Amino acid sequence: MSNPEALVVFTPSGRRGRFPLGTPVLQAARSLGVDIDSVCGGRGICGRCQVLVSEGEFAKHGLVSRSQNLSPFGAIETAFCETQAMQAGRRLSCSAQLLGDVVIDVPSSSQVHKQVVRKQAEAHDVHLDPLVRLHYVEVQQPDMHDPSGDLRRLEDALEFEWRLTDLACDMLVLQQLQTALRQGAWRVTVAVHAGRQIIAVWPGFKEHVYGLAVDVGSTTIAAHLCDLASGEVVASAGVMNPQIRFGEDLMSRVSYVMMNPGGEREMTSVVRAALNELAQDVAQQIGISPQDILEASFVGNPIMHHLLLGINPVELGGAPFALATDRAMTLWAVEIDFHIHRNARIYILPCIAGHVGADTAGVILAERPDLSERVSLLVDVGTNAEIVLGNRQRLLACSSPTGPAFEGAQISCGQRAAPGAIERVRIDPDTLEPRFKVIGCELWSDASGFADAVAMSGVTGVCGSGIIEVLAEMYLAGIIRQDGTISGELAVRNPRIQADGRTFSYELYRASGSTPALKIMQNDVRAIQLGKAALYAGVRLLMERMGIDKVDRIRLAGAFGSHIDVKYAMVLGMIPDCDLSEVSSAGNAAGTGARIALLDQGSRQEIEQLVRRVEKIETAVEPRFQEFFVEAMAIPHLNAPFDNLRQVVKLPERTGAGLDSNPRARRAARRGA
Amino acid sequence: MSNPEALVVFTPSGRRGRFPLGTPVLQAARSLGVDIDSVCGGRGICGRCQVLVSEGEFAKHGLVSRSQNLSPFGAIETAFCETQAMQAGRRLSCSAQLLGDVVIDVPSSSQVHKQVVRKQAEAHDVHLDPLVRLHYVEVQQPDMHDPSGDLRRLEDALEFEWRLTDLACDMLVLQQLQTALRQGAWRVTVAVHAGRQIIAVWPGFKEHVYGLAVDVGSTTIAAHLCDLASGEVVASAGVMNPQIRFGEDLMSRVSYVMMNPGGEREMTSVVRAALNELAQDVAQQIGISPQDILEASFVGNPIMHHLLLGINPVELGGAPFALATDRAMTLWAVEIDFHIHRNARIYILPCIAGHVGADTAGVILAERPDLSERVSLLVDVGTNAEIVLGNRQRLLACSSPTGPAFEGAQISCGQRAAPGAIERVRIDPDTLEPRFKVIGCELWSDASGFADAVAMSGVTGVCGSGIIEVLAEMYLAGIIRQDGTISGELAVRNPRIQADGRTFSYELYRASGSTPALKIMQNDVRAIQLGKAALYAGVRLLMERMGIDKVDRIRLAGAFGSHIDVKYAMVLGMIPDCDLSEVSSAGNAAGTGARIALLDQGSRQEIEQLVRRVEKIETAVEPRFQEFFVEAMAIPHLNAPFDNLRQVVKLPERTGAGLDSNPRARRAARRGA
Repeated sequence: MSNPEALVVFTPSGRRGRFPLGTPVLQAARSLGVDIDSVCGGRGICGRCQVLVSEGEFAKHGLVSRSQNLSPFGAIETAFCETQAMQAGRRLSCSAQLLGDVVIDVPSSSQVHKQVVRKQAEAHDVHLDPLVRLHYVEVQQPDMHDPSGDLRRLEDALEFEWRLTDLACDMLVLQQLQTALRQGAWRVTVAVHAGRQIIAVWPGFKEHVYGLAVDVGSTTIAAHLCDLASGEVVASAGVMNPQIRFGEDLMSRVSYVMMNPGGEREMTSVVRAALNELAQDVAQQIGISPQDILEASFVGNPIMHHLLLGINPVELGGAPFALATDRAMTLWAVEIDFHIHRNARIYILPCIAGHVGADTAGVILAERPDLSERVSLLVDVGTNAEIVLGNRQRLLACSSPTGPAFEGAQISCGQRAAPGAIERVRIDPDTLEPRFKVIGCELWSDASGFADAVAMSGVTGVCGSGIIEVLAEMYLAGIIRQDGTISGELAVRNPRIQADGRTFSYELYRASGSTPALKIMQNDVRAIQLGKAALYAGVRLLMERMGIDKVDRIRLAGAFGSHIDVKYAMVLGMIPDCDLSEVSSAGNAAGTGARIALLDQGSRQEIEQLVRRVEKIETAVEPRFQEFFVEAMAIPHLNAPFDNLRQVVKLPERTGAGLDSNPRARRAARRGA
Repeated sequence: MSNPEALVVFTPSGRRGRFPLGTPVLQAARSLGVDIDSVCGGRGICGRCQVLVSEGEFAKHGLVSRSQNLSPFGAIETAFCETQAMQAGRRLSCSAQLLGDVVIDVPSSSQVHKQVVRKQAEAHDVHLDPLVRLHYVEVQQPDMHDPSGDLRRLEDALEFEWRLTDLACDMLVLQQLQTALRQGAWRVTVAVHAGRQIIAVWPGFKEHVYGLAVDVGSTTIAAHLCDLASGEVVASAGVMNPQIRFGEDLMSRVSYVMMNPGGEREMTSVVRAALNELAQDVAQQIGISPQDILEASFVGNPIMHHLLLGINPVELGGAPFALATDRAMTLWAVEIDFHIHRNARIYILPCIAGHVGADTAGVILAERPDLSERVSLLVDVGTNAEIVLGNRQRLLACSSPTGPAFEGAQISCGQRAAPGAIERVRIDPDTLEPRFKVIGCELWSDASGFADAVAMSGVTGVCGSGIIEVLAEMYLAGIIRQDGTISGELAVRNPRIQADGRTFSYELYRASGSTPALKIMQNDVRAIQLGKAALYAGVRLLMERMGIDKVDRIRLAGAFGSHIDVKYAMVLGMIPDCDLSEVSSAGNAAGTGARIALLDQGSRQEIEQLVRRVEKIETAVEPRFQEFFVEAMAIPHLNAPFDNLRQVVKLPERTGAGLDSNPRARRAARRGA
C-alpha cells in the first residue's frame, strides 16, 4: 500500500505532480523543474522562494485547493517575518509542507529567470539571468583524520547543495576563505560567476549584490546600478566625461594623442577616475560599498572604447580605421583600474567597425531589429550618427559624420538644453511671426504672463530640438527655400527677415532690455543642412544597399531622440519618410543595451553573434555617399517620396535652384564628408 | 598518368609516405604527423626544423637515400647560416624539397616533444611540452571595405598557419597589438599559453622565452631559469628566505603571526620581494629581461605555500591543521606581485595535507613512485621530514617532526655546511681515536700536512652529515650504547671520553691554540635520537599502514640527502634496513618537480590526480606513532631486522637497558612528538 500523497500544481508553469504528505513545497517544485529562486538553500533565511496558494476548485486540474492544505505557518516563517516584510498569504516554499492538494502560484518576484519591466521608451522587457549568483552554504568542518582543504569542502557543499561542479576560485577568495568560514561558524555566502568561478565569500548570509551598466559617451558618462537579484535599477548617476578638456569631439581627442605622444594614457586615466567617482556615487545613493558591485558592463563608441581599455586610438583617426579588436571582452575590473569588488568582472560589448562602436551594439541589443520581418531604422545622433538598418534577414550599419550642430554647437544662438533655452517654435505662415516655448516654462511666448514666467531664466538661446523646429517652421512658412537659403524678398512682409551682409537672417527673439536678440543666420541653416545631409545620406546608403526605398519604423536613440519632435525631423529631411506613428524615441538605447548585457548572460552571446552578421558600410569609401549627401542638402531632400509627411504637413512648392547644381552646396558637401 | 613522386622515410618515428617531387620536407613531415618543431611557420627564420639526410641503401625501406635527393642548399638556408650556426649536413626542412627517395633523420633538438636529459640524481628524463609556445605569423592588413579588428586578423593568421582556434587574448596584448603589427610590418611573434590564450606579442621574429621553477624553502629559495624551447636550465640562483628574521623554523613563523596580527602580510611581502630579486638575478645572468620569463612554477611546504599566496597560515599551526586549499593553482604572476612578464601565468603545485606540502608533491612528481611495482620510500629531511611510501598500487604520505638537529642546529658543536666544518668521521674501535675530514680540505686529519691545509679555515664545528657520521662511528666503536648513553666506563681506554656532570662526552677535536675543542655531549646524542626516532616512527607508521616490513628502495631528497653517507644513516636507524645499493640521493627532488611542472604541461594533471590518491596520515593523531617513536629511540632501533646493514658493518652486541623500559627516553619521546 502506498503512502498518502498530495497533488500539487504550480502556476504559471502548469507543472504538476504527486508527492508524499510532508514534502516541502520547494522540494516538490525542484523535482518538477519549476523555476523558484533561493539563495539560502531552503533554510528560511533569504525569503526568495515565497509562494501563494490559489484557493478554490480547479476542475481542469481535478482538485480543490485550500491554504489549509499546507502545513501551518511555522517557527522559521515567523522568524523570517520578524526581520523582513512578507505579504499576507505568502509562504516560504522551503518551510511550507504539502498536507493536501494545492495549486501553488509562483509570483514573478520568486522566479530565478524573471522578466524585468522596462521603461516606456524601451523595446522589450529584460530577461533576468545574471552571471553572478549568491549561494549560502554550510561547510563541513575540517577533520584531521581525513585532511582536505577548506576550499575543497566549500566546493563539496556547493556541489551537494547547488549542483555546482568544477568551480574555479579566485585568489582573493582563498585569502579570505578561512576567516570567513570561522567567522560565519562554517556558514558562508559565496558569489559564483557564470556557474564556474567563485569570486567572493562572506561569513553568514549575504542578501544583495549589484551590477553597474555604464555608457561611456564622449560628453557624458552615465551609470545605472542594478540589483542583480531583481534586475531593478536602484540608483543612477552621470558625470561629464573629463576627456573633454583634451578635446570637445572625438577627432580632436585623437588629434591630441597624435600631437602629444602618451596623451592617450592621460585620457585613459581621467576616464577611469571618473568611473570610480560614478561607482562611489551610485553606491552612496543606496548606502552600499562599491565592494558590493560584482559585475559591470560597458558601451561606448570605438574611441571611448579604446581609451577606456588603454588602447591608443590613433588608428581610428585615419583610414583604414582599424579597430584593435571587434570582439566583446570579459576582463577583471582591476584591469581597467575600476575599484568595485576586487574580483568583479566586466563585460565590454563588441565594437562593430572603426566608426561603429559598442554603443551601437548596445542599441542593437536593446532594439533587436533582427527579431522582426519589418525593417527598422535605428539612429543614434551625436557628433557622429550611428545608423543601423535591417530586419530578420539582414542588418546593416554605418556611421555618418553629422558634426555637432544637432547638439546646438556651431549654431550662433545654440545652447545646451537648460532653462531659458527655446525648445519649441511655431511660425505663422501668413504673418511670419514666431511663437515659442522655453525650457522651464509651460507657457507659449504669446500667452499672457510669459514675460513674468521667464523673468528668472530669461530667453538665452536655442537648444538642439529648438533648432530643428525653428528651421522646419521657417521652411514650412516659406522663409527658407528648398535649397536652404533664407529668402530675402520676404523682408518686405516681416522685418524679422533681415539682411546680414550678402545673406539674410531671421530674428526669432527680439532684444529686450539687457537680453540680446536671437537670430537664425544663414550659416546656422548651412550647419544643420550639412549635418542632416550626412545623416540622411548614411540612411539612404544603407537603404540602397538593402534594396529598399522605405522603412517600416524608425527609432531615434539618445538624448536628441528623446526631445525631438519627429515631425520636424522629417520636414527637414533628417530621416526618411515614414508613418509618423512608427517613429519614436528609443531613449538611451545604448545604455539599455549595457543593462541587458549586465542582467542577462545569454544576451552576451546573442549580441556577439548579431554583430558578426552586421554588414558594415564605410561611408568614407562609398562614392554613392557623396551623391546622396548632395541630394540630401535640399529640404527635405531630392528624389525621395514624402507621402506620409504630406499627410501631416503642407510642404511648400519646390523653390530655389536644384542643389545638385549649386556650387556652394557642393563645396560644403565635400567639407562635411 | 600520375606525377613523379619520391618516397620519404622519417627516423626515428619510422613514418613514411610518397610525395610529389618539389614538396618541402617540413610539409611532408607535417602531413605524416612527424614531430618537427617550428616557430616561424616555415619561413627559414627560426631554424628549429633542422633535419639530416641518412645516406645509404635502406633495404628494409626499399630505397637508396642520397643527400642529392634534396634540392640544393638555397638562398633561405644560406641567409640563415649567415646569422646562426648550423651543423654541417643539416638542412632546414622548410626549405629543402624532395627530389628523390630519402631517409630523413629528425634530431631530438628539432622535435617539439623532446626528452630533456636530467642530472644523475634525478629519476627520469623530463618530457618537454611547455604551456607557452611562440608562433610567428604574417597578419593581413586592415581593409576598409571589409572592416575587422587587428586582433581578429591576428587570430585568423594563427588559425590558418597554426590551426589555433578559439583563442582568448590578454588585455596587455591588445594594448600592444596595433603598434607591434605596424612596427613589425604585419609580421609578429605571439606567445600562446596552453593553446588557448594569447599572452604576449612582439614585432617581427622572437626566438626565446623562458620559464622559472622555484622551490620556496623555509631557509632557502632556489630558482632555475629554463629555456622553454630546449628545456635546459640556463641559469640558477638561490637566496636566503628573508622570513627567517620572523622565525628560524616554520612554527616560530606561525607564532609570529599569532602574536602579531598582520604579521602574515609582512612575511608575504618579504618573500615576494625575494622572488623578484631572484628573477632579476637569473635574468641578468644570461642577459635577458625578467619580461622574457613567461611562466613560473612553485613548490613549498604548506606554510611557505600559504605565505607566498598571502593566505594566513595560522590554521596550519594547530589541529586540525586545515589547509586553505589542497588544489593546484594557476594564477597570474601579478597576483603574487611577481614581476616577470606582465601576462605570465604561474603554477603552484598542490599541497597534500596540513603538514605535507607542494614540496612533497614536487618530490612525488620527480620520483614517480607510482610507476613501479617496487615499493619506494621517499624522505625529504628538514625541520620536518616529509615521507612518502608506495608503489603502483598505493601511495601514503606523512610528515614527522624531526626538529632541526639534522641541520646542525641544537647540537653544541653543530654548524652549517661551510669550510672548516667536519663532514666525515672515522673512529678506531680499538683505540677509540677519531680521524676526520673538514669541508674545503681533501686530507684526513691524520694525514701529514692536514694542519697546514686547514690553517685558513680552522676546524670550526660539525655539519649535519658530520653529526650523523660521528654518532654512528661512536656507536659502532661501542662509545654509545644502544640506548644512546655515552659509555663512561670507556674513559679508562681513551681520555677523549670525559665526565660532564652526571653524563659523559666525547672529545672529537682537541683545543689547539685559540681553536676551542669540539665535543659530542650526551644532549647532542639525545637531540639526534629524538629527530631520528621521529623520522623512523613516521616511516614505520606508513610501512605498517601499507602492510609491509621492508622497502625495495630509498630515495633521500634535499640537501641533507645529497651529503649524507647512507650507511651511517642506516646505522643510526634513521631509515629502515634496505640493500644499500638501493639507497640514494634524489637531489633537490622538490625543485625538480617544480621544473617538470614548468616544462611538461601534462605533468600538471598527473600530479593533481596523483596527490588525490595519496593516503594522508596525520602522525599527531596516530597512537601507533608514539609506540614506534619510543622503539626508534634505540640505535639503530628495536624490533626490526638489520640483515642488509649487517652485511656492511659489524653492529655491536645489544647493550644498555631496553629503551622501552627507560623512563627518560619515554619522557623525551613525549616531548618530541
